[in-house]
Amino acid sequence: MDTTKKTIILFSGDFDRVMAAFIIANGAAAMGDDVTIFATFWGLNIFRKDEKVSSDGKKTFLQKAFGGMMPKGTKKLGLSKMNFAGAGAPLMRKAMRDQNTMSLEELVQSARDLGVKFVACTLTMDILGFKQEEMIDGLEYAGVAAYLGEADEANVNLFI
Amino acid sequence: MDTTKKTIILFSGDFDRVMAAFIIANGAAAMGDDVTIFATFWGLNIFRKDEKVSSDGKKTFLQKAFGGMMPKGTKKLGLSKMNFAGAGAPLMRKAMRDQNTMSLEELVQSARDLGVKFVACTLTMDILGFKQEEMIDGLEYAGVAAYLGEADEANVNLFI
Amino acid sequence: MDTTKKTIILFSGDFDRVMAAFIIANGAAAMGDDVTIFATFWGLNIFRKDEKVSSDGKKTFLQKAFGGMMPKGTKKLGLSKMNFAGAGAPLMRKAMRDQNTMSLEELVQSARDLGVKFVACTLTMDILGFKQEEMIDGLEYAGVAAYLGEADEANVNLFI
Repeated sequence: MDTTKKTIILFSGDFDRVMAAFIIANGAAAMGDDVTIFATFWGLNIFRKDEKVSSDGKKTFLQKAFGGMMPKGTKKLGLSKMNFAGAGAPLMRKAMRDQNTMSLEELVQSARDLGVKFVACTLTMDILGFKQEEMIDGLEYAGVAAYLGEADEANVNLFI
Repeated sequence: MDTTKKTIILFSGDFDRVMAAFIIANGAAAMGDDVTIFATFWGLNIFRKDEKVSSDGKKTFLQKAFGGMMPKGTKKLGLSKMNFAGAGAPLMRKAMRDQNTMSLEELVQSARDLGVKFVACTLTMDILGFKQEEMIDGLEYAGVAAYLGEADEANVNLFI
Repeated sequence: MDTTKKTIILFSGDFDRVMAAFIIANGAAAMGDDVTIFATFWGLNIFRKDEKVSSDGKKTFLQKAFGGMMPKGTKKLGLSKMNFAGAGAPLMRKAMRDQNTMSLEELVQSARDLGVKFVACTLTMDILGFKQEEMIDGLEYAGVAAYLGEADEANVNLFI
């Protein structure tokens, strides 16, 4: 076993939980660990480009509906609690800025810079109809078998 | 330590999280791992029989109330997000069928066939007044000590 | 690796999830394991004193607002599901009393008595403006690096 490897399944797309995932990922990567974030289900939204990409022609009605209702990228995420119809996350972001903590977007970039591997769950991609051209660059695409292969080599495996 | 063992505490009873648990469990079992799903709290609902069982005479008023309000089995589970008063999960199920992915019920059956062990948390059973005759066949019944014993032998332990 | 060590990140402040965390922590500690509960974000609320402490003069408007809206200590926590505008948790507590199970407060005290280490996340403290005089006694204060150091020594690491 390799004590320098960590995996995080990022299932949630809530701002607060995504923050927790990237704080842990950055901390571990800064200490020299190999870290993989395996984004699935709601968590996959954070890896969508926030501009409009014309992939709708390849989608079912339902996929267009789900895609249209879910946030693209990290900027529109809501809080899991005290979301106040969307006002909660901006207030939390302001509380973070007031303390000069890194923003979520800076944490994502920092994770990249530190070599954290971002993996997008292909099963979720298929179900929700996400196309690779709609996703940010630099992702790997894989399924549960790849996750399990990495988890077997890691000593900390979290589901967030 | 045995790298071929995994445990999942299934705490959530949300359709999307239960799906994630069973996708991981099936993936690991298909790769030859021993997998235990330890269902507790809301997660325990998925192991209730979906027909009416006349155990109410043995329950307190509160236990009857909780039991009556919570879903029986996997078919009535809601989504953790975008549930739309119950419409979200059927829409997600349709999006899954459209892609020919396994249904949740097929994933549960497949997990069984692959030898995944299903454990029902006895403390939750006691608190919520669930009786064994209300639960599906083939469950084991155990508490936190049994979970910890298995987790000590596993190399991946998730809380979902 | 030390098979007698466990860590729990307690991210959630929901009554049901906090219960699960402390049941696992007590179970492991009773079996002789070293257990650390690393409380962060909503989970940190459970370690706030439930009486009023006059630290508001040191806080921003936003920190006062967040602090004022979030529960202090374990007694006002809500359920993650079926909360019924706050009625759900008291009903769940009554169902627990009816079965003579330990209350959440007893579980927290028992965890203490068994030597479970309670750690408060300093980053959350900074963002939300929590001051140490507002927190219960006996906490350690640390960040993600300390968590990762402990997780590297543990064989079960859960995110709840």
